[in-house]
Amino acid sequence: MHVVKNKTQDQVEVAKGGLLDRRRFLLSGATFLSVAGVSQIASQSHAKDFSKFPDHMLTPGFPSEDYGVPSEYENHVKRLPEEVYGSAIITAAFTPLDQLNGIITPAGLHFSVHHNGIPDIAPENHQFMIHGLVENALKWSVEDLLNYPMVSRFHFLECSGNSAPNIISDKPLDWTCGHIHGQISGSLWTGVPLKYLLDEAGIKPNGEWAMCEGADSANHVRNIPLKKLYDDAIIAFYQNGERIRPDQGYPMRLFCPGYEGNMSVKWLHRIEISDIPSQSKDEQSLYMDVTSDGRIRQYSYTMEVKSVITKPSGKQGLPESGLYEISGFAWSGRGKVNKVEVSADGGKTWANAHLEGPVMDKCMTRFTIPWQWDGKETVLVSRATDEFGNVQPTRADWVSRFARFSHGHNNSINSWHISPEGKVSNIYV
Amino acid sequence: MHVVKNKTQDQVEVAKGGLLDRRRFLLSGATFLSVAGVSQIASQSHAKDFSKFPDHMLTPGFPSEDYGVPSEYENHVKRLPEEVYGSAIITAAFTPLDQLNGIITPAGLHFSVHHNGIPDIAPENHQFMIHGLVENALKWSVEDLLNYPMVSRFHFLECSGNSAPNIISDKPLDWTCGHIHGQISGSLWTGVPLKYLLDEAGIKPNGEWAMCEGADSANHVRNIPLKKLYDDAIIAFYQNGERIRPDQGYPMRLFCPGYEGNMSVKWLHRIEISDIPSQSKDEQSLYMDVTSDGRIRQYSYTMEVKSVITKPSGKQGLPESGLYEISGFAWSGRGKVNKVEVSADGGKTWANAHLEGPVMDKCMTRFTIPWQWDGKETVLVSRATDEFGNVQPTRADWVSRFARFSHGHNNSINSWHISPEGKVSNIYV
Repeated sequence: MHVVKNKTQDQVEVAKGGLLDRRRFLLSGATFLSVAGVSQIASQSHAKDFSKFPDHMLTPGFPSEDYGVPSEYENHVKRLPEEVYGSAIITAAFTPLDQLNGIITPAGLHFSVHHNGIPDIAPENHQFMIHGLVENALKWSVEDLLNYPMVSRFHFLECSGNSAPNIISDKPLDWTCGHIHGQISGSLWTGVPLKYLLDEAGIKPNGEWAMCEGADSANHVRNIPLKKLYDDAIIAFYQNGERIRPDQGYPMRLFCPGYEGNMSVKWLHRIEISDIPSQSKDEQSLYMDVTSDGRIRQYSYTMEVKSVITKPSGKQGLPESGLYEISGFAWSGRGKVNKVEVSADGGKTWANAHLEGPVMDKCMTRFTIPWQWDGKETVLVSRATDEFGNVQPTRADWVSRFARFSHGHNNSINSWHISPEGKVSNIYV
Repeated sequence: MHVVKNKTQDQVEVAKGGLLDRRRFLLSGATFLSVAGVSQIASQSHAKDFSKFPDHMLTPGFPSEDYGVPSEYENHVKRLPEEVYGSAIITAAFTPLDQLNGIITPAGLHFSVHHNGIPDIAPENHQFMIHGLVENALKWSVEDLLNYPMVSRFHFLECSGNSAPNIISDKPLDWTCGHIHGQISGSLWTGVPLKYLLDEAGIKPNGEWAMCEGADSANHVRNIPLKKLYDDAIIAFYQNGERIRPDQGYPMRLFCPGYEGNMSVKWLHRIEISDIPSQSKDEQSLYMDVTSDGRIRQYSYTMEVKSVITKPSGKQGLPESGLYEISGFAWSGRGKVNKVEVSADGGKTWANAHLEGPVMDKCMTRFTIPWQWDGKETVLVSRATDEFGNVQPTRADWVSRFARFSHGHNNSINSWHISPEGKVSNIYV
């Protein structure tokens, strides 16, 4: 473990609770590197004692696989399946955020929500059509669309219900970061800009809305303003380089950057252009927010600015006081992350974390800050600001704006309690 | 298929052979969208005829997996294993570049080369040591190192022997792009900057070289100037968000951005600091280049600027004349890609392709350009230039500089022949 027993001149506090100046910290080679857990090697002849070599250095290894898989020693790193509302019909699988790093989620660990299971769609049995208020109602085969010009963009995808446990439960649940916040993942999405296809069909003057329907047996439908589809929506065929997988909408999905996940309709097979939204069943129930004054907020698409610390986080432990790197990620459905502040004293004082570049539009951004933990009880908090000045609200502020049972679009500040024993657990601040 | 039968005012040629101005092309909605293969929908009532619905819309789907896998309909997309030099000892698996898009390679399809198989290393059986010309010889457990500060960077990794078939064979082999050029892949690599660990050990004044050794049973060793390890080398623990896999060096590998792949020593367990390079067995044989005047080029680390068109590429086919998007990627081990030129007339005239951002340091960069194929025999060529003005050489130029049997570091220009029937095949230009 990373422990420096005594502070030195290179450890300049930038906020209370032991948050350190990163630049000076990183320049301080010798200081940083006084690590308790590291062994001095008594004799350099160690390297020449072949009897001590492990078996894997003395016997040939195994061959490459056609399609590789993770190490058997990492098979605890998996998605966290959950039945939402106790039903098997709507199921969700969460990304184990606390086991990952960087801003890319492997497709095998991407979160997934589906309302009636994942359909098994052979590409030759799938077509895509645009009809309604258009000059030419058109349909395409998957093969047709794969020949259209494509763009590639790094984006997050987040479920509107992400982090709902922190709203639903009056007391903070002692769960992992992935279990609470794991309905967000990051990928490179590659596909055809939807504007090409809309222009091909030719939108009639009164066409303003697009009813987007998936080919799953839940018949998932969302209504989206045409402007969004023209701005930056794509039909995605590739995720992180390879064709998207069944639970991400194979053979094709809509992708609406920055919007709640369910707008990026999976298994997309139909867009009907209309003058008004068609009010689909989920838009009349599941995907509405109820505000504290009893009003309905419908078509609340954008996922607002948010952040979460993944290390240390719930159910992890700090073995002893000393030096640690706090790491997490931030995102905003409105654009780029501009700033992430971290507090090591429960929100009284704050320091700016380092943002790992490139900081991209509507994309996860990793942040880090060095932290000297003094071994006392404390609370770690992160607070993100996006390029338009939007700031993560406190939980109390967020809760005051919505009805008690409304839990979508929770972008409130997240906090982790550190006990003197180094136990990390979820807490509301 | 994407076909425009007649050129229009929006199709402005920027080079011979039908290369089009991308900006005008993309603005030309209506023109672009005159696609022959797309069906007009006769009646909009089609959408309401439930008897025509496929089974996957009428029956519940399947649940999420703990760790997802690609669609069964994509199981032809796999790595291409090959025994190099007819031996089972050194084996290589190639990335199927022509099946992928974007600049990220899924870990399961990342190319892999290993000299005596892939070792099965339990993390608790692995240690990393720095010794030799240091103040303090140190060793770390994997757990220790996972607590160090980490950085995340997008980089390509390319084998020094990539594209060797185009040198070894006097006649161009009629292979796929992946089979010829598939020893390059792109990932987000996350790990500990090596400079922290080197400073912790304390390099003695005469320490200038690092002998880096893997814990595989081939005992792979490379000697690397300390300067590189201080500049931008990391010990990588994560690839595309998750822990690196066995064939990429689990539990940890060295990663030297821009250098030939074998320098990024997998299963890294030892660095010995010395004043001169130790001349490992592979450095005395496999990883040397022989120039045409009979001299030896040793320690030729950097992978030079290069590009390849992936669509259309070898073994693919164009069904008929018409409009296509040419897509490929470029990279340079020296820095960023500055420009990719494409020729549709075998290299006589050139046009600048569009570079898909963000263009990152020592990272794959995707390029695209629209192309109106007139149905006649032609040759597509790409030529990359990096930010330092380095340009891909022709094959003839490259071959003139090296001995006939020397085939490492082939960064020469790649070309695809298009027959009047639309058959795409490898050709030397």
